Amino acid sequence: MTDTTIPTNTIRRLPRYYHYMQDLVDQGDKYVTSDQIANYFGIHPTQVRKDLAFTGLIGKPKVGHVLQEALESVRNFLGWDTNSKAFIVGAGNLGSAIIGYGGFDVTGVSIVAAFDTDPDKIGHVINGIEVFPMRKFTDMALKMGVKIGIITCAAEAAEAVANTMVVSGITAIWNFTPVKPYVPENVIMEQTELYSSLAILSRRIKELEGK
Amino acid sequence: MTDTTIPTNTIRRLPRYYHYMQDLVDQGDKYVTSDQIANYFGIHPTQVRKDLAFTGLIGKPKVGHVLQEALESVRNFLGWDTNSKAFIVGAGNLGSAIIGYGGFDVTGVSIVAAFDTDPDKIGHVINGIEVFPMRKFTDMALKMGVKIGIITCAAEAAEAVANTMVVSGITAIWNFTPVKPYVPENVIMEQTELYSSLAILSRRIKELEGK
Repeated sequence: MTDTTIPTNTIRRLPRYYHYMQDLVDQGDKYVTSDQIANYFGIHPTQVRKDLAFTGLIGKPKVGHVLQEALESVRNFLGWDTNSKAFIVGAGNLGSAIIGYGGFDVTGVSIVAAFDTDPDKIGHVINGIEVFPMRKFTDMALKMGVKIGIITCAAEAAEAVANTMVVSGITAIWNFTPVKPYVPENVIMEQTELYSSLAILSRRIKELEGK
Repeated sequence: MTDTTIPTNTIRRLPRYYHYMQDLVDQGDKYVTSDQIANYFGIHPTQVRKDLAFTGLIGKPKVGHVLQEALESVRNFLGWDTNSKAFIVGAGNLGSAIIGYGGFDVTGVSIVAAFDTDPDKIGHVINGIEVFPMRKFTDMALKMGVKIGIITCAAEAAEAVANTMVVSGITAIWNFTPVKPYVPENVIMEQTELYSSLAILSRRIKELEGK
């Protein structure tokens, strides 16, 4: 049963709680309360309780949550307990960075192949991941049952790449380009626009400096 | 005069408009209307008009905006017309990626030095940027008048790094770690949490698959 009533902001906050709870475990703690989490992140305890309730967790008054149970519950809720394969398109600086990052293991997402149209990049191996020609994308995605596509190519190519992803059975796209390609409603599109973040910084500096 | 009444979402949208308008220029166009921009991004024309008005742009009915003027106005508004120096802390995979990305030139932000505590990384040069020991951060930041700090170190070190940045005169921090360090109110903190984006994808896939 598809349940899309869970707020996106809840999903964004849960990895933060997860990370904090993992820190507590590393420090030897066994329990955590919603108040503790709320206090650490400077948000309202009711919000934390609501967020955790979505994962099926109900804390006990005073005691809170058993950390190991809470971690498992969040992992399970976020789908981090299942291994999801991802293809990345664009093996330039940003793409190579993401392939090389290796920090996504905890999320159960693993990049298994990269694609590019540039003959100079095809055939290269980045952090153990081979760069294939773009024309192999659909065939490989369908055969391997890949569901996640990451777009790190030039903005101009994003629309065409997204189209290829959709027809190749990709259901979730992580797009790093500033353009927002059209995708059918049942395909998830998550934008991470590095430019926009920088724009916030440079504009706010300008405001601070009173220009 | 400090003006912080400009909505963050406006600042996020402007780089998209900028990119789209630049594309139009490259195609040989001279004018753009708010309706055209609104249509391209699937948002309401009133929103586009409001966003552009913040930059001082008022379009002429039917004609719209002269593209070159609109581009300049947005650039100026976002602070992209001034060169801002940035220091990055953490020269691991993600940090190296961002240093090597080189796609931020349009925003006028240039990374001028990298810092790390790892002796194996110190002294290396990534895309022309030298990695210095962390203990040199404050001295160099004050001398060079650096205002932007980018945090790509391990989450555990983020709090200490943010503290160092604040005492070194940094007024805008771009944080890639999942922790949100405390900073004084007059310091801008922009979070780009790659984990959270992946969490959205993996959770929504789980929902789509009805698990």
